[in-house]
Amino acid sequence: MRWTVLDEQPLYQDEWLKIRLADVELPDGTRLAHRVIRTPPSAAAALTNDRGRVLLLWRHRFITDAWGWEIPCGKVEPGEDAMAAAAREAEEETGWRPGPLRPLVSIHPDNGISDSTHHVFAGSCVAHVGPRADPSESDRVEWIPLAGVPALIGRGQIRCGTTLTALLYLLATRAAGER
Amino acid sequence: MRWTVLDEQPLYQDEWLKIRLADVELPDGTRLAHRVIRTPPSAAAALTNDRGRVLLLWRHRFITDAWGWEIPCGKVEPGEDAMAAAAREAEEETGWRPGPLRPLVSIHPDNGISDSTHHVFAGSCVAHVGPRADPSESDRVEWIPLAGVPALIGRGQIRCGTTLTALLYLLATRAAGER
Repeated sequence: MRWTVLDEQPLYQDEWLKIRLADVELPDGTRLAHRVIRTPPSAAAALTNDRGRVLLLWRHRFITDAWGWEIPCGKVEPGEDAMAAAAREAEEETGWRPGPLRPLVSIHPDNGISDSTHHVFAGSCVAHVGPRADPSESDRVEWIPLAGVPALIGRGQIRCGTTLTALLYLLATRAAGER
Repeated sequence: MRWTVLDEQPLYQDEWLKIRLADVELPDGTRLAHRVIRTPPSAAAALTNDRGRVLLLWRHRFITDAWGWEIPCGKVEPGEDAMAAAAREAEEETGWRPGPLRPLVSIHPDNGISDSTHHVFAGSCVAHVGPRADPSESDRVEWIPLAGVPALIGRGQIRCGTTLTALLYLLATRAAGER
């Protein structure tokens, strides 16, 4: 079922993204011109405390014109380790410093069109280091009960795909651990 | 905290996507040139049976060069209702005809760069209508136990963001219903 990429040509390119046109052959011989977005990976941090709460930002996204709860997330800088990027973004955006992180899940958010990859790490915080360096990312930062996440989703208050996966996966693996 | 979009200019456009350059003002007055990808919405179907199994495709994605389990998903055609698109894609890709669907969750998979929206619907199937019309989408189609999803994620066998969210949300809301 693997599709064969016969050729890939640039359509548009800048420092943030590359749009390519792939010449693809399907298993039945059909040839297809397929758009491909290539963009650098991102890293995110799902940080919990010992009272079952997770550190979230309430923010507006101008691209989708939507408000919602999100975990801290940002681009991995060139040469930067993804786990270090997750810790850096978390501290910049929340003012909380994470302790040791562990890989939770790596997500392809939109794999039909883009090679975007979001590496999500989990852990807890060691300190509140003061006002966040990057307050433009959110209206407020709060510790929200993980158990209340499905209800927040039902009310349309979490729309960010990577946040949805991270919180629901934490919830599923915690529930399994409690059984 | 809302960012103000002062202007948006086209950088690249074809029938599948539009790349725009937004001139954005942050709350502290900073001006930012921000790339925006605009692309049509997609619809997906999470279909379960009465034995706690979910209908999944095992497929390769050439863009990410990764194999994984996915729910059926595809573009909503111009003028098409998202729920109808989810039912159509499910039948084309699996050979199973869904019964009545209900909205499960709408996801912004990559809202830092793209306005892509994935509308996910849930339901069950009424019939196996024969060989799938679009076999190029996957190697095989299987009914997989929903309870085994966290273990599959742990083994890296589910990477598609929308599939992760849909399956984990079904699992969380089922678990809540069983309590």
